[in-house]
Order: sequence, then C-alpha cells, then structure tokens
Amino acid sequence: MTQQRYRALAEWPLMATALVFLAAYAWQVIGRIEGTGADWLEGAMWVTWCVFVLDYAANLWLAENRRQWFVRNLHELVIVALPFFRPLRLLRLVTLLSVLHRTVGETLRGRVVTYVAASAALLVFVGALAVLDVEQWAPDAKITTFGDALWWATATITTVGYGDMYPVTPIGRLVATALMMSGIAVLGVVTASIASWLVQRVEDTAETVAEAVEEPVRAEVAELVSEIALLRREIAELRERRPL
Amino acid sequence: MTQQRYRALAEWPLMATALVFLAAYAWQVIGRIEGTGADWLEGAMWVTWCVFVLDYAANLWLAENRRQWFVRNLHELVIVALPFFRPLRLLRLVTLLSVLHRTVGETLRGRVVTYVAASAALLVFVGALAVLDVEQWAPDAKITTFGDALWWATATITTVGYGDMYPVTPIGRLVATALMMSGIAVLGVVTASIASWLVQRVEDTAETVAEAVEEPVRAEVAELVSEIALLRREIAELRERRPL
Amino acid sequence: MTQQRYRALAEWPLMATALVFLAAYAWQVIGRIEGTGADWLEGAMWVTWCVFVLDYAANLWLAENRRQWFVRNLHELVIVALPFFRPLRLLRLVTLLSVLHRTVGETLRGRVVTYVAASAALLVFVGALAVLDVEQWAPDAKITTFGDALWWATATITTVGYGDMYPVTPIGRLVATALMMSGIAVLGVVTASIASWLVQRVEDTAETVAEAVEEPVRAEVAELVSEIALLRREIAELRERRPL
Amino acid sequence: MTQQRYRALAEWPLMATALVFLAAYAWQVIGRIEGTGADWLEGAMWVTWCVFVLDYAANLWLAENRRQWFVRNLHELVIVALPFFRPLRLLRLVTLLSVLHRTVGETLRGRVVTYVAASAALLVFVGALAVLDVEQWAPDAKITTFGDALWWATATITTVGYGDMYPVTPIGRLVATALMMSGIAVLGVVTASIASWLVQRVEDTAETVAEAVEEPVRAEVAELVSEIALLRREIAELRERRPL
Repeated sequence: MTQQRYRALAEWPLMATALVFLAAYAWQVIGRIEGTGADWLEGAMWVTWCVFVLDYAANLWLAENRRQWFVRNLHELVIVALPFFRPLRLLRLVTLLSVLHRTVGETLRGRVVTYVAASAALLVFVGALAVLDVEQWAPDAKITTFGDALWWATATITTVGYGDMYPVTPIGRLVATALMMSGIAVLGVVTASIASWLVQRVEDTAETVAEAVEEPVRAEVAELVSEIALLRREIAELRERRPL
Repeated sequence: MTQQRYRALAEWPLMATALVFLAAYAWQVIGRIEGTGADWLEGAMWVTWCVFVLDYAANLWLAENRRQWFVRNLHELVIVALPFFRPLRLLRLVTLLSVLHRTVGETLRGRVVTYVAASAALLVFVGALAVLDVEQWAPDAKITTFGDALWWATATITTVGYGDMYPVTPIGRLVATALMMSGIAVLGVVTASIASWLVQRVEDTAETVAEAVEEPVRAEVAELVSEIALLRREIAELRERRPL
Repeated sequence: MTQQRYRALAEWPLMATALVFLAAYAWQVIGRIEGTGADWLEGAMWVTWCVFVLDYAANLWLAENRRQWFVRNLHELVIVALPFFRPLRLLRLVTLLSVLHRTVGETLRGRVVTYVAASAALLVFVGALAVLDVEQWAPDAKITTFGDALWWATATITTVGYGDMYPVTPIGRLVATALMMSGIAVLGVVTASIASWLVQRVEDTAETVAEAVEEPVRAEVAELVSEIALLRREIAELRERRPL
Repeated sequence: MTQQRYRALAEWPLMATALVFLAAYAWQVIGRIEGTGADWLEGAMWVTWCVFVLDYAANLWLAENRRQWFVRNLHELVIVALPFFRPLRLLRLVTLLSVLHRTVGETLRGRVVTYVAASAALLVFVGALAVLDVEQWAPDAKITTFGDALWWATATITTVGYGDMYPVTPIGRLVATALMMSGIAVLGVVTASIASWLVQRVEDTAETVAEAVEEPVRAEVAELVSEIALLRREIAELRERRPL
C-alpha cells in the first residue's frame, strides 16, 4: 500500500479521532471534571494519542523516502511525542485543520471563505479551551468561565484586544501569542483571497487583449497564404501553356 | 412577473421599510421608551416585519427554480423567521446593505469607497444600537448611553479596542464579534480596492506593451504582402510578353 | 492667469501659512497659554484663516468651470467656513498634506514610503494637539499632557489601543475616529505600495516573456522576406534570359 | 580590497559581535546586574561598539564613492555615534537583521516566511529588553519582569494591545512606537508574500496563454515558408525545362 492510498483511507478515521479527543478535552476543561470522570476522559485522550502515534508510524513506514519524510514532518513528531504537556496536546488538532484543508480543497475548490471561517472558528474554540485549562486555577486569573475564554479568544484573534480579560500565566500567554499570529494570518488570507479573485479577472482580460492584438496579424498571414496559392496556380498555368 | 422585475420594483419600498424599522428601533433603544410609546414603536416594527415576510414569500414564489432559491437564501429565512429575538431583528438591515450594494453597483460603479464608508457607518450605527439594547439594563454594564455605544462600536470595527468600554452580556459579545469580523472585512475591501486600481493600471500597460511588441511583426507582414503583389505583377508581365 | 499657474505659485506660501497656523495652535494648546499671549496667538490664527479664505476665492475665480470646481471641492468650503469650531480648524492642515502630496508626487515620484511616513507623523501630531485641546479641561480626562496625547495618538493610529488613555469628550472621540480611519488607510497604502512594487516586477517579466515568444515568429517572417527576395531575383533572371 | 569583498568577509564576524552585544545587554537588563558584574558587561558592550565603529570606518574607506555612501548611510552614523543613550544602542542590532537578510536572501531565496518570523521574533526580544531596561526602575512601572516585557511586546507588535501592561516612560513609549510600526510592516510583508505567490501563478499562466495564442500564427508562417520553397522549386524546374 502506498502512503498516498493510506492517507486517503486514514483521513476520515483520523478526523473522527481528533473530534473525540477535542470532545474529551473540552468536557474535562469546561466541566471542571475531577475524580473518576476525569480518569475516564483522560483515558479517552490517551486512546486518541495512541491512534495518532500509530498514524505517525504508518506514515513513516509507507513513505517512499523515509528520511526525507521524517525531516519534512518534524513538527508531527513533536506533536506526537509531547502528550504530557496538556495544552500542547491540542496541537494534535492541527490534524483536524489539515484534514479540513484537504476536504475543502478537493471537493469545494474556491470556497476559501468557508475554509478560513471554519479554521478561525476552530482556532478560537481550541484557544479558548487551552487558555481556560491553564488559567482557571491561577490565583489572579481573569478568565474563569468558558464564555469569558471564548470572548477573550475572539477579541485576540481579531487583534482588537480590549484588555478586560487577558491571560496571566506563561502558558496562557503562549496560547495568546499563537492566537495573535493566527489573526494576522487570517487577515492575510482574506486579503489574498480578494486579490486572487481580482487577479483571475485580470488574467481573463489579458487573454482577450492578446487575442484582439493577434487578430490583424493572423488575418494578414491568412491573406498571404491565399496570395501565394494564387501565385502557384499562375506559375502552373505558365508551365502548362508553354511550348515544350 | 419575473423575479428580477419584482426585485427592481421592490427595491426602494424595501429600503424605505428598513429605514422605518431602523428609526423605530433606534428611537425605542436610545430614548429608553417604555409604556404606550414603546407599544406604538413595537407595532411599527411588527408592520415592517410583515413587509419583509411578504417580500420573502414573493421572492420564493417568483423564483425560476424555487428549491434552488430556497437553499441559496437560507440566511434570509433565518432573518425573517426570528423576529422575537430583539437584536437579531437588526439583521433585517442586511436588506438595507444589499439594496445599497445594488444601487451603488448599478449607478456609480467604481465608487467602492463610498460603498465601504456607508456600510461601515451603517454597521457602526446598527452595532451600537444592538449593544445598547442588550447592555443598558445589565447590572455591570459599561455601555449605558448611545454616545458610549457609538464610541465603543467605532473602536471595535477599527480593531483598536481601547477597553474603556466592552460588552458584558453574551448577546452583546456576539454583536461585538460581528463588528470585529466586519472590521477585518472592511480592511480587506479597502486593500482590494487599492489593489484593483493598481491592477487596472497594469492591464492598460500590458495592452500597450503587447501592441508595441506586435508592431514590427505587423510591419514585416505588410511588407511581405506588397512584395508578393510585386511578384505576381512580374509573373503576369512574363505571361503577357511571352509569345503564344 | 490660469488656475494651474496660480496653484503652482501659491503652493509654498500656503504651506508656510499652514505651518504658521500649526505653530500658533500648538503653542496655545501645549503651553496652555491664556490672557494676552492667547490673544496674540488667536490673532495669528485669524490671519492664516484669511489667507485660506483668499486662496479659496482665488481658486474659485480662476477655475475653468467654476460650478464644477465648487461641487468637487465642497470639503474645502466646509474647512474654510468653520473657523469658530476650534478642533475643526486643524482640518485646514489638510492643505499641508495635499501640498506635501504634490511636492512628493512631482519631485520624488516613487518615494511613497516617505509620503506615508510624513502623513502619519503629521496626523499623529495634529490628532494629539486636537485631542489635548478638547480633553485637557475635561473633568475625568485621561489625556492631560502633550506627551500623553502623542502616546495615545500613536497607539490609536496603529490600531493597538492599549486603553491606558482614551478621550472622554464627544469631540475628542471624533478626533479619535478620524485617527483610527487614518490608521486603516495607512495600512492599506503600505500594502498597496508593496503590491505595486511586485506588480511592476511582473509587468517587466511579462514584457520579456512577450518578446521571447515573438522572437521565433519574427525570425521566420524575416526568413520569408529574404526567400521572396530570392524568388524575385530568379524570376527576373528568367525574364532576362528568355528570348523575346 | 573592494567594499563588496570586505562586506562579504566582515559579515559573520559582525553578526557574532552583534550577538555578543545582545547577550551582554540582555544579561545586564534581565539579571538586574549591578556592581562589578555590570562593569564587565558594560566593558564587553564597549568592545562591541569599537568593532562597529571600525566596521563603519572600513566601509567608508572602501566605498567607491565615499560622499555618496556617507549620505546614503547616515542612519549607520547615527547608530554608531550614539552609544551613550542606552536603548538606542540596541539599534546596532539592525546589523543583525540586515546580515540575516543577506544570508536568507542568498541561500534560501523564497523563504520569506522564515525571514519575517525571525525578524519579528528578534524585534519582540529586543523591544522587550529595551522596554524592561528603561521601565523597570520607573516608579509606576507596569512592566517589571522580562516575562511581562515579552508578553507586552508580543501584544504590541501584533497590534492587539490589551492594555494590562504599557510603558509609562518617554523612552519606553518610543520603543513601543517602533514595535507598533514594525507590526504594521510585518502585516504588510505577510500580505505581500501571499500576493507575490499569487502573482507568480498568474505570470506562469500568462506565459502559457501567450504561447497558445501565438501557436496558430507560427503554424501558418511555417506553412508559408514551405509553400514558398515549393514555389521556388517549381520556378527552378521551369528554368531548367525551358529551351535556351
């Protein structure tokens, strides 16, 4: 089985696994689950982790050039190898994003707006979860409910930053930095999409212009061809008429 | 009557209705009208709602492909079907924006700046109204006058976000999210407009360049045509001169 | 004298007048001048106002189509006609900006960066002055020194908006709105400049590509021309040789 | 030795010197080093300053047109001539950035993302250092630890600006202004990079279009060439056959 075929097969199961992970994480963080419930959710998260490790191993095994794949996908190794550091686990959801990317890219090409909106929504949701996870037990925390966390994440990704809420722990601030950078990327992609649409229009016009400019040359060349055909016929007549 | 013709006819009445609705809503919210006055204004708003329901029905009835129109205009159904949830009613004003879009698009093509400025102003006004509506009765509200609401909406749509004022209710925060996203869209459209103007200039230049490059080829082809004409004349002379 | 010639002559005197006005205004606001000193500065500002009124009248008089010029320059009328409303007076400095625009545009075409930087600096300075003017006497004012005003204007035009300082009076907030919109415009122009530079590069490449594509056609047409020249010579020989 | 050769040789030593300077400055500021330790670090910084002065002198000496180089590199003179004003010293690190630019530009052309990310990271780090340097001894300072300074610098360069931390000293605010402007530049470069990628795609398409349009003309010209070859052969036959 080639890597490409494996990836096609593994796409939807991986997406489902990522969603299970996200649900378990969200439940634990938002519900402030402790005790037996927390153990069950923790177990579910470890199962999803195993699936991601297996996926990584399968990809590495099936890669045409294993060394090259390993070097180019170091970030996947980091995500897989660091399950003990809670908020980093959410980086696994990059999988969700890339699956979304592939799906949108293949079936709805051009619907960049849908993709950007979905990505931004996922980023806000995951960012809010991650910040709530690390902030809600901090002593001077401003962000203590999921509603607050969502509100803060929205104001951060749009670079509005009211400042009524902000993370106070180092990890919360790292999550905030990721959200800020995502916001700049989202803005860039929105602008690029509009630009792309404009550029498409220009391209169409350029083609029309090129054809319009070519037209007279083509007409004259066609005239030349018929002129020369006439010439040949006249010479042929000349030959036939002449006395041998 | 076709849908297109209906839309052309309904354009201005719908815009007027939307303005009546906006005026009634604004009066009620800003003036903190209660009692009989509020009942009258509420009545006016219900009348405008009826007009929008009729417009939706007429559009659905006159659509060439009703199923397709229904699916593509689900957002209009949502706006029409939810008049009980106060701030959502303002979404009806999207009508105002789309009518503005058609008007500007048809009579003043190219005046994108006017359109963007008008849209942003309308969004700030409507956003300020909606936030004031839900915030002014909240216990810890920061936004309690229309002046404050306008100031907050401006700082939000430009993504400045001072944080001297911010919504504290869930619905107020949803309105804020809409304003933030509008701000990003406005920025994108401004950039795209400037880009479009630049692209237009490049297109003109490209045409000039293409013609300049074509020029020598066209000249040589013209020379060829005259050369061949000479050739034919000479061959004709050859034929005439020859003894039969 | 044509309007164009008048404008060329009036350019530098107008710029000097605007600078005098700015200096007098700044001195009065920053130095919190009162009494006789304030009267002198006020007098200087009225003199500059007279110069601007004369300039407006001269432009209107010399315009080729007075009606058209009047309609297209309504904003200049507003600026000239409203000298009693203090912060609005600063709008006269738009003159400064447009003179700067003409100067940069004519002598240093392409130095958009210089122009944008100078405009932004002027806007920050003027915005800080205007806000300080209206805010420094307000009861709950946050902005009470020129240093604070500059800091606030910078954070506003870049849309950072810390919120440690913000205007509390309606006019101060209007000035803030103008600064925020300028910030978005500056961002748009910066992006457009980079885009323009990229587009220039593409244009150059397109020209090269077009020439490269033309090359073989041109070569073959040239070959055709020489072929036909050979043909004519052969036919000529044919004619000379033949017995008459 | 030409200036170009000198610059190639001096590149890596200068980068190393800049790093030594950065390390000494960071150590002193973050560790709040005083007494003998501070003297040693101060000494190290003066040594790096001497290196930069020597580099400036060497560049001026080796420049082809010294006067022109002097005028075009006034900013380097300012950086070199002002070592007594602590935070300004960090401007020397512009060297680091320009060396990075040359390195990235020459070996990894196209990896703009890497360059922008590295520049932004360096700016955040240097900005945080500079602000901490001037703020940590201020009476009402909000920014008193390096963690706080990094967090503040990040929120500033992304133009989020929560306002939980902000500089209160004039020099700190100057540093903040530089960071805000860098943020706008970063946003512009990100957008330009995406635009550049799109433009590249359009260029490729335009080339294909131009070739497709040329194809028929080229084919007909080729046909003409062969037609005329036939013609010549026929005329040649005509000559051979004719009785002399």
